Amino acid sequence: MSSVSPRRRDAGATRTRLLEAARELFLARGYSAIGLREVAAKAGVDVTLVRRYFGSKERLFEEATDVSEDVAQLLGAADQALGERLIARVLAARRDVDAPLFALLRSSGDPAVVARLNAQLDAGLTRNLARRIAADRPRIRADMVTALLLGIGVQRVLLGKKPLAGARDDDIAEVFLEAFEAITKLPRGD
Amino acid sequence: MSSVSPRRRDAGATRTRLLEAARELFLARGYSAIGLREVAAKAGVDVTLVRRYFGSKERLFEEATDVSEDVAQLLGAADQALGERLIARVLAARRDVDAPLFALLRSSGDPAVVARLNAQLDAGLTRNLARRIAADRPRIRADMVTALLLGIGVQRVLLGKKPLAGARDDDIAEVFLEAFEAITKLPRGD
Repeated sequence: MSSVSPRRRDAGATRTRLLEAARELFLARGYSAIGLREVAAKAGVDVTLVRRYFGSKERLFEEATDVSEDVAQLLGAADQALGERLIARVLAARRDVDAPLFALLRSSGDPAVVARLNAQLDAGLTRNLARRIAADRPRIRADMVTALLLGIGVQRVLLGKKPLAGARDDDIAEVFLEAFEAITKLPRGD
Repeated sequence: MSSVSPRRRDAGATRTRLLEAARELFLARGYSAIGLREVAAKAGVDVTLVRRYFGSKERLFEEATDVSEDVAQLLGAADQALGERLIARVLAARRDVDAPLFALLRSSGDPAVVARLNAQLDAGLTRNLARRIAADRPRIRADMVTALLLGIGVQRVLLGKKPLAGARDDDIAEVFLEAFEAITKLPRGD
């Protein structure tokens, strides 16, 4: 039994519903095309609640596209396991669950959105990765890994491009790890 | 002096203007959000001309996002030069000139658009590349190269992500070629 009051539980559920509606709409049509009223209507709540919970569209978008929890897990991995963790995360990406990243890409016409996406990529992956790389040009190498992961994600989740979209995870991971090793010069886990 | 009649020359200029307007609009807001009327208005011509020249929105989009000329040049390269040609092409990409690819990505919510983009990637790069690869999983390796190029393009042109967006071309090419060699096992040109 939870000690949370029914009212507070409802508030949490409404918040979750609003975030899901926002992700779906931002994903479908991008940041600038979507209004708070539309998000509220999709979630079946009054627009005043959106303002009460999130304050502004900017703040709603920020929360809806936050991926920092995901990333904290990845960053804890040892060098030997990092490549495998990264590709496993991308291979598990699904359009519905991973809407945040694709909502951001879809909204890339907006400079503020782009700045946030870049900051997330840096904080979440490239700065940490660059610190581990002992080879020359560590920051470019880190962005090159991000490029590879982004490109795999775009082909699999956004485009459904075959063979990458239909191939066995193990086969993709094997080729990815060869590229990851060549780019980062980090030791392999196997 | 050209032997083309002024009238025909005007038609050519109008066509070009319409294609440029279409690229810009599709890039900014995606395929489904744009109507022929809007394209005509942006190009400063009557909408009946758009219909006369292109027939339908589908056909206009097809022409506006065709990249087959670019690609034919790349496909003629020897194995040793292919990696360098590919990265040079991506490093030369600019948001204005290379609107077609990004217009397609932006329009990736539309299944017909996605099918065309995938077909272009296959015909233009991955099928040709897979044929050259003697290592295991040639088709996945070819798509992995496409992933890397897409990811570099997205970060540089769409996101302006640093350091990749501001780094020296030579530095990026050097790291790319290491990854390209590891993925394709093709010989290097240097």
